[in-house]
Amino acid sequence: MAKKLSEIGEFGLIDEVIAPRFKDLLGEDITGIGDDCAVMPFTDDEVQIVTTDLLIEEIHFLRAKISAFQLGFKALAVNLSDIAGMGGTPTGTFLSVAFPKNLGVAWIEKFMEGYRSLSEKENVPLLGGDTTNTPDNIVINVAVTGRMKKSEVKRRSHARPGDYVAVPDNLGDSPGGLQYILDGLPEDKFSESLLKQHLTPYPKVSEGRWLAKKEQVHAMMDVSDGVGSDLHHIVKASNVAAELYLEKTPMSDNLREASKKYGWNAEELAYSGGEDYTLLLTVDPEAFEKLAGDFSKTFGRPLQVIGKIIEGEPGLKYLRNGKPLDGPGKGFSHF
Amino acid sequence: MAKKLSEIGEFGLIDEVIAPRFKDLLGEDITGIGDDCAVMPFTDDEVQIVTTDLLIEEIHFLRAKISAFQLGFKALAVNLSDIAGMGGTPTGTFLSVAFPKNLGVAWIEKFMEGYRSLSEKENVPLLGGDTTNTPDNIVINVAVTGRMKKSEVKRRSHARPGDYVAVPDNLGDSPGGLQYILDGLPEDKFSESLLKQHLTPYPKVSEGRWLAKKEQVHAMMDVSDGVGSDLHHIVKASNVAAELYLEKTPMSDNLREASKKYGWNAEELAYSGGEDYTLLLTVDPEAFEKLAGDFSKTFGRPLQVIGKIIEGEPGLKYLRNGKPLDGPGKGFSHF
Repeated sequence: MAKKLSEIGEFGLIDEVIAPRFKDLLGEDITGIGDDCAVMPFTDDEVQIVTTDLLIEEIHFLRAKISAFQLGFKALAVNLSDIAGMGGTPTGTFLSVAFPKNLGVAWIEKFMEGYRSLSEKENVPLLGGDTTNTPDNIVINVAVTGRMKKSEVKRRSHARPGDYVAVPDNLGDSPGGLQYILDGLPEDKFSESLLKQHLTPYPKVSEGRWLAKKEQVHAMMDVSDGVGSDLHHIVKASNVAAELYLEKTPMSDNLREASKKYGWNAEELAYSGGEDYTLLLTVDPEAFEKLAGDFSKTFGRPLQVIGKIIEGEPGLKYLRNGKPLDGPGKGFSHF
Repeated sequence: MAKKLSEIGEFGLIDEVIAPRFKDLLGEDITGIGDDCAVMPFTDDEVQIVTTDLLIEEIHFLRAKISAFQLGFKALAVNLSDIAGMGGTPTGTFLSVAFPKNLGVAWIEKFMEGYRSLSEKENVPLLGGDTTNTPDNIVINVAVTGRMKKSEVKRRSHARPGDYVAVPDNLGDSPGGLQYILDGLPEDKFSESLLKQHLTPYPKVSEGRWLAKKEQVHAMMDVSDGVGSDLHHIVKASNVAAELYLEKTPMSDNLREASKKYGWNAEELAYSGGEDYTLLLTVDPEAFEKLAGDFSKTFGRPLQVIGKIIEGEPGLKYLRNGKPLDGPGKGFSHF
């Protein structure tokens, strides 16, 4: 029987159907499919980076569960997060939208206000796009261009055995917020910060740019599918393995308390929930203490070690207080 | 009552809701919304250009009426046509797709083959994108980056009174092909070339690059909505008017014959049908003869004069043998 898309999944589609067909067209020094952004040479010492993300109503968001302002903000945020993952500076954004004909203009105005709000904060202009109508579900595609020094580009493939694996933020708040939404839970004293992290995640562009300038940061990417899935991309691209120390998982008190109240597996949310839109990096262990101190002075919060890169077949080992355990899931696939 | 999107239309959405919100974020020397591509400075003498187009099943194509290969080819073609409209060279493409879960992998493979076929012909790599699923209609967004000399960028706003308005191809073949499809007409001796032009339009990237190097070409853009609509963008951006000579409309014999057979208004198709994906340019009249001769020697077909830029309030006047008439419609809007 003819194979269906659901049988090969999102990564199968990219690795088996799409990427192999274009390898021979790649010019020298070009990074195509396989990192947060494509990297294209431009001048001798600068590169252009590009990323794009597609959001479909009912798959990525529910119109009744996110305000137009929040959706506009988030549509840009998830793309700027990819620019942050490389350590680049965004230069322009491109917004394609398909709206149903009967959508109110006021809704669209609020959507654009949310998009503008983050554009202004990060000082990046909307430079183009496309508008059309759609028979039913809203469709949003954002593409972002950026630029950066060639020598500062941070890739998934540069992790080295011995590196600490670190993140600059708590994990799991966004998936915690999503639980409130999906389960229709009433707001309580824990929900506000979790919902905010889910509905208007702030992309870590400044942090990414700062970290990109540090040679001791070896690999970096943004956390979009959850560390369990995203770190898997790093170990695969770098041909190393990693161990994760579950007792060190940085989680907010609100996530812990809400998890207790509702019986959620907080670690599962932290590692597999996705959409935290923070950074995931591997750092030279000798240099970590000084780097973390400087980071903390600059950004007012710590860089937190959650694991270590080790030699071995690409894969993740979850440990609790030194003892191996079967880990939470490896992130979700859109198919 | 709250205003609906259908009341302000596509151009109202862009001009009233989107563009004004971002004007103050535009840096110096940046062209944002309002031309075929955004233009961003990069080095002292080179600029980066970017365009993006969104295609939605049932709005822009019917899955039963276009093969997967043709759709992949065309999705890229319509974007490369925007690069051609500026006179630039494409450097990378970015493909976001949403497919239903039950779509066959073989269909997707053929789609990618069509996309690759044009990528290879124009030597431009696919460098990234996004893949996700969709509850129903296929969604395709393509973004293309390009580069070119700053001094060669051709804009909509540079038309001058006295300029000839010219095109390098017949008009109306693509909308003629669309008529065959929409009316379910049987293939005949006229249909093949019309259907080919509709289903796999070839973007005029080489022609655009050649024309961009000529100072005597003042304004240029690609023809996507039909000359009647697209020339309106040029006269508006240049603050001039234009007259069009209907007796000079370049049309293929197949379009004329099919129009006779089926009672179509061939001129209406030529000016308002859209999707011809050729170029529309205005040229210094003194220089036209030599330019057209060189063009013909290089590309094996003539540059054809279809009208003239004149002074006046932005607008189009349709003439037949010197006599004014009410013109065909002014192109279509997606809303």
